Amino acid sequence: MKSNVVAVIGGGQLARMMQEAAGALDIELRALVEAEDGATAQVVPDSRVGEPGDEAAVRALLEAPDATRIALTFEHEHQDTELLQRLAGKSVSVQPPPEALLFARDKLAMRQRLSELGAPVPAWREIVSEADIAAFLAEQGGSVIVKTARGGYDGKGVRVVEAPEDIADWLADGRALVAEAKVPFTMEVAALLARRPAGEIKHWELTQTIQVDGICARAIAPAPGVSDELAARAREIAETIAEGLGVTGVLAVEMFVADDELLVNELAMRPHNSGHWTIEGATTSQFEQHLRAVLDLPLGDTTPRAACAVMVNLLGSELADPTAAYPDLFERYPEVKVHLYGKSVRPGRKLGHVTALGDDPTQLSHRTLAAAALLRGETD
Amino acid sequence: MKSNVVAVIGGGQLARMMQEAAGALDIELRALVEAEDGATAQVVPDSRVGEPGDEAAVRALLEAPDATRIALTFEHEHQDTELLQRLAGKSVSVQPPPEALLFARDKLAMRQRLSELGAPVPAWREIVSEADIAAFLAEQGGSVIVKTARGGYDGKGVRVVEAPEDIADWLADGRALVAEAKVPFTMEVAALLARRPAGEIKHWELTQTIQVDGICARAIAPAPGVSDELAARAREIAETIAEGLGVTGVLAVEMFVADDELLVNELAMRPHNSGHWTIEGATTSQFEQHLRAVLDLPLGDTTPRAACAVMVNLLGSELADPTAAYPDLFERYPEVKVHLYGKSVRPGRKLGHVTALGDDPTQLSHRTLAAAALLRGETD
Repeated sequence: MKSNVVAVIGGGQLARMMQEAAGALDIELRALVEAEDGATAQVVPDSRVGEPGDEAAVRALLEAPDATRIALTFEHEHQDTELLQRLAGKSVSVQPPPEALLFARDKLAMRQRLSELGAPVPAWREIVSEADIAAFLAEQGGSVIVKTARGGYDGKGVRVVEAPEDIADWLADGRALVAEAKVPFTMEVAALLARRPAGEIKHWELTQTIQVDGICARAIAPAPGVSDELAARAREIAETIAEGLGVTGVLAVEMFVADDELLVNELAMRPHNSGHWTIEGATTSQFEQHLRAVLDLPLGDTTPRAACAVMVNLLGSELADPTAAYPDLFERYPEVKVHLYGKSVRPGRKLGHVTALGDDPTQLSHRTLAAAALLRGETD
Repeated sequence: MKSNVVAVIGGGQLARMMQEAAGALDIELRALVEAEDGATAQVVPDSRVGEPGDEAAVRALLEAPDATRIALTFEHEHQDTELLQRLAGKSVSVQPPPEALLFARDKLAMRQRLSELGAPVPAWREIVSEADIAAFLAEQGGSVIVKTARGGYDGKGVRVVEAPEDIADWLADGRALVAEAKVPFTMEVAALLARRPAGEIKHWELTQTIQVDGICARAIAPAPGVSDELAARAREIAETIAEGLGVTGVLAVEMFVADDELLVNELAMRPHNSGHWTIEGATTSQFEQHLRAVLDLPLGDTTPRAACAVMVNLLGSELADPTAAYPDLFERYPEVKVHLYGKSVRPGRKLGHVTALGDDPTQLSHRTLAAAALLRGETD
């Protein structure tokens, strides 16, 4: 039994990568996972198969009478708020707290709260009827984004809408919807920070994310061509949100850059794909920082290890096993760091990522993209 | 079942730290460990309790009919050579090969072989009688080092000898002994490299090791004040040894620096304490490189991540649980990376290490020593 215990709900790559940091710090990570052979269970000895909403399973995960510090945290936002509130009411340290997590789970609640906090957001409207969407379309020039308030991620639950009938099915189902103005952005960025319950906050470098079909394909840190002033503004916005929403652990605030303005797009309250570069690229990785933060320990230094870091996701592969590319990849790209999540291959699935550090974002992008292409089974 | 499998004999901190690299590369690490709750078993899901010399247990560890690549490797050199030779004879990939490992296990065989290879070594003599040691003492001016050829590590099995009676017990036991001239060294260094069966070799920066009571207390890389020429010579010597002995995996060659000369002291054929700084301090850590090397995959880049890295060992603690120092340590040394091995505290035991990267070895030493002191329970 360890003195420091973090119980995590979720069995994917995020809990898997938390384990590397947990092992180094002698923190006992326990995971409630979907499958006994999933990404997390392969590397976390104390993985237990169970439903996130199974109160008995979650309570069992938290049994650690001798622990000095223990916290419950999450790989994703789709949690049972009432269960978490009951646990928090019984002195369980739920990090981030259920009241904060709600804003990462419900895009409508998020838009409302961010507007109250004065954070810059695209024009938005709650949509409950055809009349609502028709009016918003007219206001916004005929084309808007509509998102389901709940359940969407990685491009799912998001549509470009030009007429009310484009969301007729969602309206018929009575789904909570939020419409947003299309932002003519020049760049997407993520402001990544961690906050502990005691209030301390540490930021990483502002990261450019390059999305393909609504999924992060590549991240570059620091975001190239962004002025110090804009980067500082992004940090301020993220900090306002972290404090205003009472977020603890890692918070990623995804924003659009448009006309030298920032507009908040999405929130994630957990280690985030835009921060995978921190494993090699920062003094403290987002995974280590998340563990420190949820245990309310002082946060680690986030100074970058190099002038630039580039991370490229591996999304699907033609190879039945991407490690078949190792001999070629390692030979050609000895400086590229490979992370594979132990998942079986499916089209478009996030199977891993690669990272490289150096001086020149263009060259780093070239080499990491080429390395990821080898893992996808592409030959040139 | 993974395509890449590394079976490791040993359940201490070295196999524990291999797991961080194995997880990232989706390599299945399997460990034959001493105890089911030891340093390795806490983080390696497939840990099995068994004796290193138990052939059935070792064979079971190597059962992986679907693996593309599989290798057997070790945390320490004290292995049963005949067993390993039998396995190697049956097409098991034993890395390093048993013939090489012997030279890390038997100091007499090592001295003989290094002399044959022309590697610079201190004056030495095999000791089988009182007459031998008396003659060598007379030759060397009255004070020499005597080591048991086998079984010594971390200062054990080593004596400063001024008269034959100082080793009367060892002689009476008929132990194989090697006597060596005392070297008036100005510095101790370790040349660290990895070699794969295909022959490729990659070096890390030459590392200064600061020993206290025969145990590495601190490591500084690159070794301060060492000329490029001397560092190059150290690399050459290490390479000669790696090739001459047929070493695969990580090789650490510990040397004395005396009068701008290098003299080989000890060999280790596995990730070594002098290389723990590579986890943060090099593009590829010694643990990742060891896995690549034993699987005969192309080696990773070893370029340092910073001008200087300093590592300090945690040897024993006044604290029942060194993580009790986390709040204070993390607050005061946010840039120091802490590694604890999950071991129970015993006086002088290697419980963990801390590393920091930066520009100034003096300042880095100061801060890592202070951080380690907090983990030992010292207050200032």
